[in-house]
Amino acid sequence: MAEHINTTNTAKQPAATVRTAVAGVGGYSGGELARLLLAHPRLQTTPPLFLGRVADEASSGRVPLERLHPQLALGGGKTLPEVVAFTPQLIRDADIELVFLALPHETSRGWAPEWLDLGVRVIDLSGAWRLQDAANRAVYKLHDVDPAKAALLQSEAVFGAPELHREAIANARLVANPGCYSTSIILALAPLLHSGLVDVDHGIICDSKSGVSGAGKKATEKTHFMYAADNLSAYSVFGHRHTGEMLEQLDLTAGQIQFTPHLLPIPRGILSTIYVRLAEVATPEKIESCFRDFYQSSPMVRIHQTPNLPQIQHIVRTNYCDIGFNLAPDGKRLVIVSCLDNLLKGASGQAVQNMNLMCGWNEEEGLQ
Amino acid sequence: MAEHINTTNTAKQPAATVRTAVAGVGGYSGGELARLLLAHPRLQTTPPLFLGRVADEASSGRVPLERLHPQLALGGGKTLPEVVAFTPQLIRDADIELVFLALPHETSRGWAPEWLDLGVRVIDLSGAWRLQDAANRAVYKLHDVDPAKAALLQSEAVFGAPELHREAIANARLVANPGCYSTSIILALAPLLHSGLVDVDHGIICDSKSGVSGAGKKATEKTHFMYAADNLSAYSVFGHRHTGEMLEQLDLTAGQIQFTPHLLPIPRGILSTIYVRLAEVATPEKIESCFRDFYQSSPMVRIHQTPNLPQIQHIVRTNYCDIGFNLAPDGKRLVIVSCLDNLLKGASGQAVQNMNLMCGWNEEEGLQ
Amino acid sequence: MAEHINTTNTAKQPAATVRTAVAGVGGYSGGELARLLLAHPRLQTTPPLFLGRVADEASSGRVPLERLHPQLALGGGKTLPEVVAFTPQLIRDADIELVFLALPHETSRGWAPEWLDLGVRVIDLSGAWRLQDAANRAVYKLHDVDPAKAALLQSEAVFGAPELHREAIANARLVANPGCYSTSIILALAPLLHSGLVDVDHGIICDSKSGVSGAGKKATEKTHFMYAADNLSAYSVFGHRHTGEMLEQLDLTAGQIQFTPHLLPIPRGILSTIYVRLAEVATPEKIESCFRDFYQSSPMVRIHQTPNLPQIQHIVRTNYCDIGFNLAPDGKRLVIVSCLDNLLKGASGQAVQNMNLMCGWNEEEGLQ
Amino acid sequence: MAEHINTTNTAKQPAATVRTAVAGVGGYSGGELARLLLAHPRLQTTPPLFLGRVADEASSGRVPLERLHPQLALGGGKTLPEVVAFTPQLIRDADIELVFLALPHETSRGWAPEWLDLGVRVIDLSGAWRLQDAANRAVYKLHDVDPAKAALLQSEAVFGAPELHREAIANARLVANPGCYSTSIILALAPLLHSGLVDVDHGIICDSKSGVSGAGKKATEKTHFMYAADNLSAYSVFGHRHTGEMLEQLDLTAGQIQFTPHLLPIPRGILSTIYVRLAEVATPEKIESCFRDFYQSSPMVRIHQTPNLPQIQHIVRTNYCDIGFNLAPDGKRLVIVSCLDNLLKGASGQAVQNMNLMCGWNEEEGLQ
Repeated sequence: MAEHINTTNTAKQPAATVRTAVAGVGGYSGGELARLLLAHPRLQTTPPLFLGRVADEASSGRVPLERLHPQLALGGGKTLPEVVAFTPQLIRDADIELVFLALPHETSRGWAPEWLDLGVRVIDLSGAWRLQDAANRAVYKLHDVDPAKAALLQSEAVFGAPELHREAIANARLVANPGCYSTSIILALAPLLHSGLVDVDHGIICDSKSGVSGAGKKATEKTHFMYAADNLSAYSVFGHRHTGEMLEQLDLTAGQIQFTPHLLPIPRGILSTIYVRLAEVATPEKIESCFRDFYQSSPMVRIHQTPNLPQIQHIVRTNYCDIGFNLAPDGKRLVIVSCLDNLLKGASGQAVQNMNLMCGWNEEEGLQ
Repeated sequence: MAEHINTTNTAKQPAATVRTAVAGVGGYSGGELARLLLAHPRLQTTPPLFLGRVADEASSGRVPLERLHPQLALGGGKTLPEVVAFTPQLIRDADIELVFLALPHETSRGWAPEWLDLGVRVIDLSGAWRLQDAANRAVYKLHDVDPAKAALLQSEAVFGAPELHREAIANARLVANPGCYSTSIILALAPLLHSGLVDVDHGIICDSKSGVSGAGKKATEKTHFMYAADNLSAYSVFGHRHTGEMLEQLDLTAGQIQFTPHLLPIPRGILSTIYVRLAEVATPEKIESCFRDFYQSSPMVRIHQTPNLPQIQHIVRTNYCDIGFNLAPDGKRLVIVSCLDNLLKGASGQAVQNMNLMCGWNEEEGLQ
Repeated sequence: MAEHINTTNTAKQPAATVRTAVAGVGGYSGGELARLLLAHPRLQTTPPLFLGRVADEASSGRVPLERLHPQLALGGGKTLPEVVAFTPQLIRDADIELVFLALPHETSRGWAPEWLDLGVRVIDLSGAWRLQDAANRAVYKLHDVDPAKAALLQSEAVFGAPELHREAIANARLVANPGCYSTSIILALAPLLHSGLVDVDHGIICDSKSGVSGAGKKATEKTHFMYAADNLSAYSVFGHRHTGEMLEQLDLTAGQIQFTPHLLPIPRGILSTIYVRLAEVATPEKIESCFRDFYQSSPMVRIHQTPNLPQIQHIVRTNYCDIGFNLAPDGKRLVIVSCLDNLLKGASGQAVQNMNLMCGWNEEEGLQ
Repeated sequence: MAEHINTTNTAKQPAATVRTAVAGVGGYSGGELARLLLAHPRLQTTPPLFLGRVADEASSGRVPLERLHPQLALGGGKTLPEVVAFTPQLIRDADIELVFLALPHETSRGWAPEWLDLGVRVIDLSGAWRLQDAANRAVYKLHDVDPAKAALLQSEAVFGAPELHREAIANARLVANPGCYSTSIILALAPLLHSGLVDVDHGIICDSKSGVSGAGKKATEKTHFMYAADNLSAYSVFGHRHTGEMLEQLDLTAGQIQFTPHLLPIPRGILSTIYVRLAEVATPEKIESCFRDFYQSSPMVRIHQTPNLPQIQHIVRTNYCDIGFNLAPDGKRLVIVSCLDNLLKGASGQAVQNMNLMCGWNEEEGLQ
């Protein structure tokens, strides 16, 4: 029998495999998770349990995964695991050790405590557990049945940015997988802020552009092809809910950072253009060193040699976050460009990266 | 006071203007109709009455047109006519002479008789009145309150293809504006069939591709950007409801023509590739003459000199139907390509062309 | 015979018409100019003379306009004016009064003096004459045969932003039509800067995104569909040549404004997101009034009611510049969004607007 | 030392690995080949030798692979193999056993003989060796230095469609990798033709639509974003050079099949809609069985359950060819839809599939 992860003495010795479940496999993130986990070298003997809405197969309570995600179908008559209608009992029966929650925020907030009680480790892809400050968390309008318990779990939750919290993730029971926009901005700013190079009081401006998959699978006016195609629009100016993650992770106040998301007419990918005033005059070499040093042990971040800048095509369908920059001739004004795939490094890829850390595996495993 | 059209002694002398209404101005066709009519030289003194769903302005029963179609907004502080929640009384009060129905099929079928009774001429953009054969019409699942009256009106309805029924349209009370796919195919085939050049029993194949606006404004799985973008899909093979129009207008049987629509990842435009076997060996010159002769008095059809073929970019945002062809070296196998903008020549532009004819005006007026 | 414009006593009394030429009709701007001028109400009796490269028709020196721009072709067997291979003599022979130059910068710099000498008024769409400061102009690497004369003409050249220089344009011999990016940024900032509301020393950040037509008709690596589609990339950070126009028109120093253009995967349209720190706390009402007051006589600018923001789809294929804004709760940080069609308000539409002013006509004429 | 393939006694016992080279790694097919081979489980100890144009690094004769294909770059400071300027000596020095030619047709025709003489097995991705009939091959305007030798090699060349020629490929020295359009059409028709179900004399019509990568990396008028985007156009009607492959592989005459390609506004993917008249009335079950039986041992073909049809999104970035069909109520008229990714199953993926067969490996290896 396979050696499995030990959730009390975590990651001290790498597990051979892990029994996983994906709750909410029907959405875009769920689909990418399914794809990544099915191909993950460590899970070949223990295929994930897929849970989802299977309303159209009500009698059986099961639906083929390829029905929800036709692009995953296998050839040669082979079939994929079925998606099963969720019941909490299933997690217990299947002896699941690690569950990915790709669910609405409120639903995640409700289920995570229950499953943690079962001894299951949780990687939550929603915004439910990312924010320690209740004021920041208010945008999600979460309701806790047991507020005291939720507060305890919240304080235990680890923000799932491997490049910032590698150790804590390895030992965590509850990992709050970061938002897509936030990942692109936090990774671009963390090295400079950590080194004290930025005049934070001048104000940092983050102008981000995201593909339509970021808006979710629900058919709405804004996800209609006729709205999104051949168009560009800004939205949620001064009010996007990923802002709280930037404040907490970068230790900034609301007046120090400003975030404007835009909807791009492409399926996937985020590009963030970030404007920073340096505290002192610097050289391009110094800035590049700052980035390279910070990420020297981070295989999923690629630093571009200035003046080269990343672009969306280079990172789509990868788990990389690409970062490049241009420094003004005055040595003070800096433009950073960071790119990632919102469904991978911005969601499911990063979740797998977190699973790898939690199991003591190479962080890149199954992501190349 | 302006001289208006006389609905009993139609189009004998051109009207100076006409009092129009658009019922259902909120959809894509309605928006294009509004744009065309507001700019129409003959309607500058008599702006159209716009009727639509104005639920969000329930208290007033009115909503600015630019709220529904922001791209139509005027500069310099000028405002557009308001959209008014429909009541039948409005048509009577405003002394409307000609109404465009851009409504669901069933709704059009219900209202048209009522308005014709008021002496209003009707141009219906739905499929409700296009088909004389009840069997063909069955796909629309129409229900008539007064079947005898509906049957009478049906037999009086004129299929609004100006290139085929110019005279009848000029004198019609009820014009059934053709479908977008059907227009592209009927105009491509009519000259050849009329001249007896086609071996119809061999079977005609129509492979059509349409932009997403053809699928309507409703947000659905198939109009989601993530479904349509970077994709192509065939649908309604052997069962698309525009087929009936082709059968009736081209005098073909179901076994003689085959139609396959596809959903293109572009906002607007239709390209139909049509495969025909000729009854006898022909030359390209003969084919080209056939087209040019047939359309010599039709300003909205552009014939390409073989081997040039039309493409979607050339017709988007115009009211033209472009037609070109290539003949095989054997002189028997013919490929015809026809293109049009599904919202203009395939809907609202053709409706305005029909209005022009009904009022005795130049058929191109307001369409260039 | 038609009454024509008097170039010495300009625009005092509106001309009935004007004899125009377009030099460089083959590019995207040239094509849009041809479309606009052919439909312009004042030019129906005096169609423009189209000049261009007609290499493929070398023997005749002429090529049908629809060969270069197939989407402009007429139906009903009607033909468009031909494009003629340029010789300076043609301008003289045709007694041209106003010429549009849609040519490379260096070529425009060379020809404009010659034509002005002939008494022809010039609207130049290139960057050749936009910049008064030779240091700013250096990016265009222009070479003047007669530097003294060029300097004189340069000082006489009027920057063709009607909203800023209406009077001067009306009387100008040489109008330098603004760049597309610059127009979107200058119009968004001029009202606030003019009112002294902006803390300019804090630094203004302009994050702009443009469709691919802005990159010109030449087939290059960056205009290849495979490069641009499904992509977004920043370029010319700290070095785009439109920056000089912003500096000169807004009276700013290089350290006060920062401009980052991006290439959008759409055919046309620019959206600029502009970040400004106010000199003092303000209310949204005050900002909106500032914009509305400044543009009250400018029909081609549409101000959005905050918090509504413009988007590219609303301005594509119009000559409008749409402007909206959001003010932070602190009343100091302001985000302005401005949109325009780079080929119309950003090039050919604005050129026609300038022609209208130069001829004493309504500035919107032929642009709606 | 690794056990390598034995080119004389081929594929009798699976090789452990193989020393490969890719000639022409700079294009789209070359880039996809590089990606697939670098990740191929059997090549982890023997990375491919990449040959290409390295003009921009003339002094060294080497260029990093990520310079040509930035999306392939690795994170964590790791580098990819370099691309080396080609000299025939390199193939010999590196003791290459199998070379992929991703080169212009004429260049492939010239080099293949030379390398085969060295004992190297060749998979050619161009059209140079696909056609046995010299008349069909004439479209490529190939010139042979040694016609007799070329004729001999031609007769030995195996058409690299694994689903049709699995055995011959396994033993081949020279595999002519099929065209992208041809693959989609040949795989859709082979089962039906093989079973004698088709009335071939009635004529088969293949209406295909391809993404822009099929037009190659060269920047041309037709690959310009402004030409391809928001557009659709037919081209090479009755004259596309992939037609010969269909004739030879399906044993049809020119009058029996008709092929019309179209350029789709998407980066990659082909959808072919194929119209067939059956020899006798059939049921959907019979047709589906015909497909399933034919492809029961072919893991890279996925048959859809009628009436479901494949679409481009389901196959993009996979090596699958998806096939579905709809049968008319008359049981005689059949529409088949087949889809594949033109750069994978239509080029590089199929080439790797062929390599797998030639080395005695599982045909899916490295392709999932």
